[in-house]
Amino acid sequence: MRWNGWGDPAKEQDLPRAVRTLLPLLLGRIRRPEEAVALPDVVLPDSALTDDDLDAFRAVVGVEHVDVSSDARVRHAGGRSTPDLLRRRMPRQDAPDAIVRAGTHADVVACLTIASERDLAVIPFGGGTSVVGALDPERGRHRGVVSLDLRRLSGLIALDEISGEAVLAAGTSGPEAEALLAARGYELGHYPQSFRYATIGGFAAARSSGQNSAGHGRFETMVTGIRVATPTGVLELGRSPGSAAGPDLVRVFLGSEGIFGVITEVRLRVHPVPQERVFEAWTFRDFASGADGLRRVAQRGGGPTVIRLSDEAETAVSLAQVGKIGKLLAKGAGVVTVYEGDDIAERRARTAELLTQAGGRSSGQGAAEDWLEGRFDGPYLRDSLLDAGVFCETLETATTWSNLQNLRDAVESALREGFAAERAKSYIMCHVSHIYPTGASLYFTVLAGLRSEPLDAWHRVKSAVNDAIIASGGTISHHHAVGRDHAAWLEHEIGETGIRILRAIKRELDPTGILNPGAVIAEQDG
Amino acid sequence: MRWNGWGDPAKEQDLPRAVRTLLPLLLGRIRRPEEAVALPDVVLPDSALTDDDLDAFRAVVGVEHVDVSSDARVRHAGGRSTPDLLRRRMPRQDAPDAIVRAGTHADVVACLTIASERDLAVIPFGGGTSVVGALDPERGRHRGVVSLDLRRLSGLIALDEISGEAVLAAGTSGPEAEALLAARGYELGHYPQSFRYATIGGFAAARSSGQNSAGHGRFETMVTGIRVATPTGVLELGRSPGSAAGPDLVRVFLGSEGIFGVITEVRLRVHPVPQERVFEAWTFRDFASGADGLRRVAQRGGGPTVIRLSDEAETAVSLAQVGKIGKLLAKGAGVVTVYEGDDIAERRARTAELLTQAGGRSSGQGAAEDWLEGRFDGPYLRDSLLDAGVFCETLETATTWSNLQNLRDAVESALREGFAAERAKSYIMCHVSHIYPTGASLYFTVLAGLRSEPLDAWHRVKSAVNDAIIASGGTISHHHAVGRDHAAWLEHEIGETGIRILRAIKRELDPTGILNPGAVIAEQDG
Repeated sequence: MRWNGWGDPAKEQDLPRAVRTLLPLLLGRIRRPEEAVALPDVVLPDSALTDDDLDAFRAVVGVEHVDVSSDARVRHAGGRSTPDLLRRRMPRQDAPDAIVRAGTHADVVACLTIASERDLAVIPFGGGTSVVGALDPERGRHRGVVSLDLRRLSGLIALDEISGEAVLAAGTSGPEAEALLAARGYELGHYPQSFRYATIGGFAAARSSGQNSAGHGRFETMVTGIRVATPTGVLELGRSPGSAAGPDLVRVFLGSEGIFGVITEVRLRVHPVPQERVFEAWTFRDFASGADGLRRVAQRGGGPTVIRLSDEAETAVSLAQVGKIGKLLAKGAGVVTVYEGDDIAERRARTAELLTQAGGRSSGQGAAEDWLEGRFDGPYLRDSLLDAGVFCETLETATTWSNLQNLRDAVESALREGFAAERAKSYIMCHVSHIYPTGASLYFTVLAGLRSEPLDAWHRVKSAVNDAIIASGGTISHHHAVGRDHAAWLEHEIGETGIRILRAIKRELDPTGILNPGAVIAEQDG
Repeated sequence: MRWNGWGDPAKEQDLPRAVRTLLPLLLGRIRRPEEAVALPDVVLPDSALTDDDLDAFRAVVGVEHVDVSSDARVRHAGGRSTPDLLRRRMPRQDAPDAIVRAGTHADVVACLTIASERDLAVIPFGGGTSVVGALDPERGRHRGVVSLDLRRLSGLIALDEISGEAVLAAGTSGPEAEALLAARGYELGHYPQSFRYATIGGFAAARSSGQNSAGHGRFETMVTGIRVATPTGVLELGRSPGSAAGPDLVRVFLGSEGIFGVITEVRLRVHPVPQERVFEAWTFRDFASGADGLRRVAQRGGGPTVIRLSDEAETAVSLAQVGKIGKLLAKGAGVVTVYEGDDIAERRARTAELLTQAGGRSSGQGAAEDWLEGRFDGPYLRDSLLDAGVFCETLETATTWSNLQNLRDAVESALREGFAAERAKSYIMCHVSHIYPTGASLYFTVLAGLRSEPLDAWHRVKSAVNDAIIASGGTISHHHAVGRDHAAWLEHEIGETGIRILRAIKRELDPTGILNPGAVIAEQDG
């Protein structure tokens, strides 16, 4: 992964010419940003760890897996939100004091014991793709902070072909997991935009949702069991499908983002590799009629594997990106559907009937194929935009179908007004990419021609957006999670009593509070 | 509800003649039990509540809703397990000190405050159908115990037709909920055997699963939000479908069985009332091939609304019950399928293909219709059996498909050997009534011709069964929950660290431990 951007450095791309043409029209004159710092020139604070600390970790994981190099520390200094990338462009940065690469569940247990004894905070690190500040090198009240890199915990531990269950080590990346399963004829089918880098444990810890969620569900619906190491004990949870043996404690760790323990293994529902794939794109008059179509599909069930609706603004730019600039002014909202697996003809006919009832027109397979081809490439485009001085960030929420338009309006207003207050023009796009019987996600991409310091400006805008989400009945996150960036808003969502439950669990499992301080639960005063 | 048995006293039935013929063949000579006590003759301990205590509750809920009559106390003295019914036949019984019928969420909050201040345990009481001892009048270390009856919290609070979501008061019974929804064109579709009496809050608190679970999912999958009153604060959880805002705290309360708080409202996914219903029964050579058929259906998806497989022993008796005694010796395992809702022809064709592949033969609709007609009547039959001196009880577990036969064998052996050690013949039936992609439930009904004291004998047998379930990888409960009867086994399922999580949450929300003492979490020594 590029140290200060997304993904494979070989894939860095210049802005497509169509986008280059578009930007000044949408955002006015763009100010070229200052040159970003080069990796060898980044200045970090000295590591707070003593040789004795390092030796303790080395005795567990091996000398070669304890790393205090600047290179490694910078690469573990954060995730991949736009603020993260902006911080990576600066000459002085904060970073964890050391990187410890655990190789086994037992290593993780031992490292947590060492960290507890030595008063060191621990930031569990998987693919490094958090966009909510969950990987900030936050020491809390501790003496230092260690990034516990889990990518050596990799592999397919077990596959039960009769039950359709696989056990994967938590540090296995998306592509590694799918390759291991595909060799046995199975697929997990979880393809979030972070797929190429993010890990199985990260998907679980952050309640991830992938592009095939209409067909295979959110990641948490695939999880049937987990193994967790905490500073005060281990857990093996998820004994059987369909249990009523007290509250489902697996769910306490899905969404726990490393504050209660470190997930080391995940047991997952898998299915045979699909043999067929069919694409179909649709066009709707507007976002509202498209959303009505998606609602019908979600409430009927048995529809596509992938379904997503782009609003008018996103549809226009998507067309521009693939070079169809001539269609820029075409009105309408585009829907992409992809069908994989069994019964495709039936599912497609049923979906076509419902989308047609909502006013949709089939527009062939081209746009859906284009989407599939570029579906993991959005973050590369963001890097190019940032290089060109264009602020670009995404955020997401979800709500019931009846509240969808209200929430969308509220978020867009907050974004538009927020950037206007920064004297910046903005261009806001929205799509629905995850549907449920009772509601759907809303995913926003915003471009802005910021002239002021972008970190501070975005902090102000994003705070206003979060307030708007809460005021309008949305959730503070649909699949990016809470991290540190959303922690201050969680209490508005789950209430003071809800926060007390989280604190009580944390106090029990992590009494010295070494695990990911300040993530999920906002730090208390005093 | 009959005070010492199941359901409507008018529906009491004599044993069908076929069953009467069968019993001595299966179980040997049956000893007629002693006469059960009459309700007015039950001797209870005096209520431990003072007039001052009662006045405090009366001030909240009204004089007429605080009840210390023997009649009310006995009717709230337990649930409807066979041990409960055996205890109801005895002259001396334990019972709660008073029944308080809360009418609103605010009443519940106020009652919990009073109980905390006055050191009184509180047993939340819905439909009274627990079969795991969750309603035992257990005082714990407190001065007295109050049954908090929630059935006045009844009604449809809101219906969002666009989102397909309904909010129901927690004390609404199954039939009340379906009638209220049907009047608006909607159905919840949750039909456990306890349907006629059990409440929405009870379904949530116990992680219930209904007969239509193949079509509509377990109750917990229908829940989108809850309102809870605890002794130290209230919660409104489940802000949106598809959230990644920390762990899903709704799931902390699903399965909490009243130990963390009292669920007062539940928000649920609903669907339009189905317009069509199609039945089809199938016959398999044996249980194993039938289970293979169900596995294929579960893993493919889009199948029946109801699907259940009876083993050879249950199939034989079911046929006997409906008067087809001539078929008693017919070999085979019967499967019932019911289709409701949309796309029935497609779903039926797909299911038929899979069941045929597994060796099933369609046997028409008769047996499936018979099942539907009698589906809530099993407990009536148990009353008649107990009256005739036949011990009868049910228990359930679940596991993965690959472990299903192993677990079934282990439970059956434990039952058979357990009753043999009591010098009793037993007849054991098993069915699969809830299927998941990765596994299924196993539900056992056992009849025995016990000569020894049945409560003690069953306690010994059931303990051995629970040990066998744990040793064989099953869950201690699929849908009956933990209560007090399974509490000692929960630690074997979720581990010591899992129990510590539950205790930590309880300590935070219910610091004086007044809520349902001893349920779910076994009482600690000292």
